[in-house]
Amino acid sequence: MRIILASASPRRRELLEQIGLSFEILPSHVEENAKAKTPEKLVELLSAQKAEAVFAAVSEEESVLVIGADTVVARKGNILGKPKDKKAAVKMLKQLAGKAHHVYTGVTLIYRPERAEEPCQVRKKTFHEATKVRFYPMTREEIQAYVATGEPLDKAGAYGIQGVFARYVERLEGDYSNVVGLPVGRLYQELKQWLDPGQLPAVSGGETNPAAEEREGCHEGI
Amino acid sequence: MRIILASASPRRRELLEQIGLSFEILPSHVEENAKAKTPEKLVELLSAQKAEAVFAAVSEEESVLVIGADTVVARKGNILGKPKDKKAAVKMLKQLAGKAHHVYTGVTLIYRPERAEEPCQVRKKTFHEATKVRFYPMTREEIQAYVATGEPLDKAGAYGIQGVFARYVERLEGDYSNVVGLPVGRLYQELKQWLDPGQLPAVSGGETNPAAEEREGCHEGI
Repeated sequence: MRIILASASPRRRELLEQIGLSFEILPSHVEENAKAKTPEKLVELLSAQKAEAVFAAVSEEESVLVIGADTVVARKGNILGKPKDKKAAVKMLKQLAGKAHHVYTGVTLIYRPERAEEPCQVRKKTFHEATKVRFYPMTREEIQAYVATGEPLDKAGAYGIQGVFARYVERLEGDYSNVVGLPVGRLYQELKQWLDPGQLPAVSGGETNPAAEEREGCHEGI
Repeated sequence: MRIILASASPRRRELLEQIGLSFEILPSHVEENAKAKTPEKLVELLSAQKAEAVFAAVSEEESVLVIGADTVVARKGNILGKPKDKKAAVKMLKQLAGKAHHVYTGVTLIYRPERAEEPCQVRKKTFHEATKVRFYPMTREEIQAYVATGEPLDKAGAYGIQGVFARYVERLEGDYSNVVGLPVGRLYQELKQWLDPGQLPAVSGGETNPAAEEREGCHEGI
């Protein structure tokens, strides 16, 4: 079975490698211009668009698991994606410094098992995880010095929790890897429901529970 | 000024490097057999013993900052340090799987500035951070496979959150780096109180606030 990460994000790749998964990368090139009423719905929608675009490009003969994901930051109803330039990055960090915000990552899994003869054997599941993050106060100079590194430009909310920015992070409530870009704990638990023990990444001794298998989100013509 | 990490832990070294600090490593070789009534007091005491042992070995002529740290895991009043063997590691993980526990890291900073002529110019501060961690349930096979990797043996509570074990972590409340072994956000905020901007690690544009300087924990004869 092929496992495909429908994302070009190096952080997501590292997280999947961290939990021991063997996979390929096939970015979706979906235009991220969807609209939704809440950040939760937005990241779920975008993760589904990415996973579906990549799933559609895979031969129908093949057994495959596609993982799509999207991350945004939200504060007081404002959704913060990737900043368009350094000025926008400074503005975002000024909004976030010394306060709490939420990070939402939506994930869509699409799975076609071996010998899936009917479309309804394709399984699909979308979920999201939310993590509350609180920053220490930052001076204007600290914000500008961080933005000058260029690190904020490809990151939702203009920061990367896994780098030097850790010095400004006071606390989290929720999953840490979700803030990096992919909630690997939840993802692994979902995979345990679908895959055979032999398909799960090593070091698990992974046991699946066949009784718990469901066909969530099974629609004709996925 | 020399900055010395009084710990041989590779995780602590990586965390300090992550926030951009330049430092040396000088493990303390303190026997970790202190007794204390609570995990908070225990990690504070052990961090102070480690920092003091290393500080005592540094020439009195030198400006130096010593960082000592100690981490334990606690669940329902039981303090879990490093497991003594694989059997103990399995037992610890069985206690933690599917439930919440706390991770405590104590940190002691001892700082002698340039031209410190009186002992009382030496500053000392001890603090701790607590992080609540919840694991997903784990099967016996999963616990045994993880212990078989050998990874639990040098880690308090028999797990390393930054590795493959991330697949079993459901959520945190508190600082993530504190679980890895050193609360770098809090540490950086403390250093801002003591050091000049030029002594703070790069990418900070770091501003210290001289008005906030205190001589916490200043004792004759440290």
